[in-house]
Amino acid sequence: MAGTNSREITDLPPAPAVILVAPQLGENIGMTARAMLNCGLTDLRLVAPKQGWPNPKATAAASGADRVLETARVYPTTRAAVADLQRVYATTARPRGLVKEVLTPRAAAAAQRSEMAAGQGVGLLFGPERTGLENDDIALADVIVTAPLNPGYSSLNLAQAVLLVGYEWWTAGDATPDRQLDHGDSGPADKTDLFGYLDRLDAALDKLGFYHPPEKRPGMRRNVHAIFQRARLSGQEVRTLQGILSAFLGAKLKRGPEALAAKQPGEEEQS
Amino acid sequence: MAGTNSREITDLPPAPAVILVAPQLGENIGMTARAMLNCGLTDLRLVAPKQGWPNPKATAAASGADRVLETARVYPTTRAAVADLQRVYATTARPRGLVKEVLTPRAAAAAQRSEMAAGQGVGLLFGPERTGLENDDIALADVIVTAPLNPGYSSLNLAQAVLLVGYEWWTAGDATPDRQLDHGDSGPADKTDLFGYLDRLDAALDKLGFYHPPEKRPGMRRNVHAIFQRARLSGQEVRTLQGILSAFLGAKLKRGPEALAAKQPGEEEQS
Repeated sequence: MAGTNSREITDLPPAPAVILVAPQLGENIGMTARAMLNCGLTDLRLVAPKQGWPNPKATAAASGADRVLETARVYPTTRAAVADLQRVYATTARPRGLVKEVLTPRAAAAAQRSEMAAGQGVGLLFGPERTGLENDDIALADVIVTAPLNPGYSSLNLAQAVLLVGYEWWTAGDATPDRQLDHGDSGPADKTDLFGYLDRLDAALDKLGFYHPPEKRPGMRRNVHAIFQRARLSGQEVRTLQGILSAFLGAKLKRGPEALAAKQPGEEEQS
Repeated sequence: MAGTNSREITDLPPAPAVILVAPQLGENIGMTARAMLNCGLTDLRLVAPKQGWPNPKATAAASGADRVLETARVYPTTRAAVADLQRVYATTARPRGLVKEVLTPRAAAAAQRSEMAAGQGVGLLFGPERTGLENDDIALADVIVTAPLNPGYSSLNLAQAVLLVGYEWWTAGDATPDRQLDHGDSGPADKTDLFGYLDRLDAALDKLGFYHPPEKRPGMRRNVHAIFQRARLSGQEVRTLQGILSAFLGAKLKRGPEALAAKQPGEEEQS
């Protein structure tokens, strides 16, 4: 379980409020709190929760996201819950008769980031588990958010709907690179080390008659090199490959004291 | 509840397999099936499920995604479960000692789309609920997928992890516009109707002395017009505004048979 200390909430930047309208089950409120905290959302507002508030079942389901529940506020009406906000998004899977703009969660998150950066208070409305938001609640919102999902089966449970909208909010402000390769302490291999290994491998393969016939040697050699270059080796991994090569050469050539079998500087065998 | 007929599965395009390694609770398998079907994923593979298989608790939690469970296959090992695949993604929240590329779910989904379009079989590995994937299972995968989430609280439950990765898969192939505004049967208002309303409003406001003093009239008029232009009105809504104007004019001007109070062609009052 990740940390649940107070730092996690107080250090988070301002984020949209999550407003649950007439939530039915405490478990779902707890799981919503967990999904919120996953996404850096901490302002939970409950409109007339069916089982009253506080609710021990919510705490049991929150898996350490209790602080979101502890600071939750209860309102008698949706209108009261959004009163201090400037921009309200209603989440619903079903098309409604209302003429309102419908955004994807991704487009909504980009808009919410801009609005909050401009100092506006933003709220996300979620309806009761079984029925979703009523038209009268959707009418209080500026725009609608609908997640594009399998149209043959698009119903999400409450916490999952919160997670998708919250995840887009979080990723819209997140700078994690699309792809990362952490080579550990040794870092990526430099080309001296890589080519040193490939030269030694080529010399061994030449000795063993692998690059045959001679006219095919250049192409074969390039293809063998490509395997190791594509692997984006670390410095440590090149040393491991040198060790593997030495092991093979030792077995193959142990009848004679071949120079090829000599250990390289810095070479280590790994189990 | 959205439809749960067979069409929803058979009509879905090929998608990655979801491989649950040693899942602990049937409920989580059922909720995973639901999240999968939300995202158009139907190939569920279970590696040594702790409670055996089939599991009635899974069915109870699947909320209509039973067909994903019915076609699920059970394997004794992770290696057996991925044997027919060409590309395997391991999902984990925690950094590991392995030197493997780490992708965001979004970057992974784009890669998966390319790979499947090239005819490759793709699998997504998810570990047991409490512990996540073991290093030995991660070692069977080509790359790692980690969702960028609040670093102070990044633990997701199993079905939520499947939902995030699956959601990115689905949206990577989805053409839903970022923003849509459905004006219903009447469509967006044409400018003749919009300007006709604004002209009549201006005439009324001139009559009532609202645009005062005269030197400020042009700016005031533009600002009033901007309100209605920003609303992206439908044809029906322009007729509703004409009706509202008539209602006001009727009340204000009913002492005289003013031309301004005359109804417009096609005007309808709405409640």
